[in-house]
Amino acid sequence: MIALSHGEGLQPVGGFRAAGVACGIKASGAKDLALIVADKPCPAAGTFTTNAFAAAPVQLSRAHVADGQARAIVANSGNANAATGTEGRANARRMAELAAQAIGCPPSEVLVCSTGRIGAQLPMDKIAAGIRAAASALRPDGWVDAAEAIRTTDKRAKHASAQMAIGGASGVVQGIAKGAGMISPCMATMLCFVATDVAVGSEALRKALRHAVVRSFNRVTVDSDTSTNDTVIALASGELGNDPIRIGRSGYRQLRAGLADVCLDLARQMTRDGEGASKVAEVRVSGARSRRDAERVARAVADSPLVKTAMAGSDWNWGRVAAAVGKAGVKLDPNRVTIAVGGVIGFERGEPVPADPAIARAGLERSEVLIEVDLGAGKASATVWGSDLTPEYVRFNAEYTT
Amino acid sequence: MIALSHGEGLQPVGGFRAAGVACGIKASGAKDLALIVADKPCPAAGTFTTNAFAAAPVQLSRAHVADGQARAIVANSGNANAATGTEGRANARRMAELAAQAIGCPPSEVLVCSTGRIGAQLPMDKIAAGIRAAASALRPDGWVDAAEAIRTTDKRAKHASAQMAIGGASGVVQGIAKGAGMISPCMATMLCFVATDVAVGSEALRKALRHAVVRSFNRVTVDSDTSTNDTVIALASGELGNDPIRIGRSGYRQLRAGLADVCLDLARQMTRDGEGASKVAEVRVSGARSRRDAERVARAVADSPLVKTAMAGSDWNWGRVAAAVGKAGVKLDPNRVTIAVGGVIGFERGEPVPADPAIARAGLERSEVLIEVDLGAGKASATVWGSDLTPEYVRFNAEYTT
Repeated sequence: MIALSHGEGLQPVGGFRAAGVACGIKASGAKDLALIVADKPCPAAGTFTTNAFAAAPVQLSRAHVADGQARAIVANSGNANAATGTEGRANARRMAELAAQAIGCPPSEVLVCSTGRIGAQLPMDKIAAGIRAAASALRPDGWVDAAEAIRTTDKRAKHASAQMAIGGASGVVQGIAKGAGMISPCMATMLCFVATDVAVGSEALRKALRHAVVRSFNRVTVDSDTSTNDTVIALASGELGNDPIRIGRSGYRQLRAGLADVCLDLARQMTRDGEGASKVAEVRVSGARSRRDAERVARAVADSPLVKTAMAGSDWNWGRVAAAVGKAGVKLDPNRVTIAVGGVIGFERGEPVPADPAIARAGLERSEVLIEVDLGAGKASATVWGSDLTPEYVRFNAEYTT
Repeated sequence: MIALSHGEGLQPVGGFRAAGVACGIKASGAKDLALIVADKPCPAAGTFTTNAFAAAPVQLSRAHVADGQARAIVANSGNANAATGTEGRANARRMAELAAQAIGCPPSEVLVCSTGRIGAQLPMDKIAAGIRAAASALRPDGWVDAAEAIRTTDKRAKHASAQMAIGGASGVVQGIAKGAGMISPCMATMLCFVATDVAVGSEALRKALRHAVVRSFNRVTVDSDTSTNDTVIALASGELGNDPIRIGRSGYRQLRAGLADVCLDLARQMTRDGEGASKVAEVRVSGARSRRDAERVARAVADSPLVKTAMAGSDWNWGRVAAAVGKAGVKLDPNRVTIAVGGVIGFERGEPVPADPAIARAGLERSEVLIEVDLGAGKASATVWGSDLTPEYVRFNAEYTT
């Protein structure tokens, strides 16, 4: 049913045009302003950072998407417009006004995103020129440029698509993202924009997006630093012409699965693209009393600096995994716990298990390392993706200067 | 009243003898077994790790100290006896029995500690020989050897003393510690042993120790990894001959202050001695609604990899501090928050404040960096000490192989 086309090129999505231009926010001259516009106002949903220092554009977009409708997204890279006070809030509003003027809609239908340096004011003259240029460059196949324009330290642009059979027709869900956030968090942002041509009610879109985010972006972690700008937005043009999808009705599960697949694909692209990261850890926790417990344990393991440095050194150190499991704050009996790293069991129901060091090490010398923890306490499970911690990561984040 | 003598030599404490010997657990041939013995059973108190994978010796010592009395501490370095199952629990019990035989007391009066590698069984033949050797080496001025014998990756042995006027006499509180735990956590342990000649009831000793630990070891953090072996033990010989101190009665505040000063001194020695750490951060949070809120925010800042790498790079990045404050999970209004890094304000009541880059950077090029956050919400405050995150730290923990 779902045909993922990640890795392949971006395609047009019925009812949308996009553009990405360079307006000079980035000293490098790279593209730094993206615009995504629906032909008409359409159902929209957003999920935003839980950080109390939510950036000015996050505050504005949260308010603008509250009615479940939007027409456009304007996003810049190179400057996060976070912790910028009164002037920053005025600048976010001004970005919405400028985009609204350029495409002909009320400012309340424009969602605004920024990503980059925290604490510096936006260069509004450059932003204004950039929005005008982007508006004239809008076209159905402008997604590649938009994906380029939201990159900061990402090694490559990130995108994913899924096809779904909806009422006899073939709908598409397509997303672009930048992989800062929990992976290259010095830039303090992850952004993800998803567009679909499927007709869907805004309540159903919101619920399906929530479902997708919880199982994708909320399951990747690199350094536990929740950014000030994290934003995921979904827009649904309805161009496919299907009967609008409602929660629990025909097509809802297909759309939800499509959104979830696209978001998970993008989230994993972020983990792989971490600054200095040499490998990805997939932490699978099973046998938990609740999914919440399983997630907490998986996150504690994926976030542990000791587990992360052991991965970087290909050290079959299940003892560090045990210590991380134990500090997660979840009630558990070590005598029921089993731990395997790189496919080799090191600890089984409370007892250490000897292993051939060469075989054990081999499981860690891969680009994806599997860490499995069975808590032996129940039936719930969860998977979290993390990355290793290398001297390069530290060097990058120490040498990057605001 | 309190004269701290850290940096100076260790002194005898009335009623105690100590020893440290090499028994071959460490391949290097360095001292690896410590013994501290009171002349007679005395009031004892302990605080232990909250990690669910608490090591076998932690489980045993927790049980043995429950009655508030103990006679001796036996501790080895080089092996944590953690995640070692049935055999590990038997080995911890055996350590208590061997020490009890050597000094002539019931095993239940012996507290056992181990620090080092997780998941490997103790070499019990070496341990047995080491305990016999240590027992014959016991002497009042054996503290230096004991402090040496609990070191793992510590660059130097850690100790601190305080003098207190108690009922006309001069009592002493003396502590030795090893700085693993949250600082060089690959060894998965911090240990601290405190002895005093003051006469005190075990309930008062327990309460005073709790007070000291909350304000010292629980306020330093390097990587948020709570170990499987963390242990702090206090023994009080009563040799000073004062009227035994009770909670809230004469001498209690003096003893509590002495314990707190010794523990804080040792905790800060650990932070300074972190593997690869180039500087210490003192994070002072004020204006919080509660001390709990203040601590949570201070800890979020001190633990943030982005703040820690910025410190390593002497980057005046108050934006990363803001992001860490915002993710702490404490209800706050960014428009009331003020942030200063290295003594220079970057953000004041919701607005960014420009600073001279050279002056701002200077405040970070010190071995102790001050980070101040005023939440503007109340009167509670808390201070947490952390260290920076350097490529050397990562390299060390990646290359250390079990």
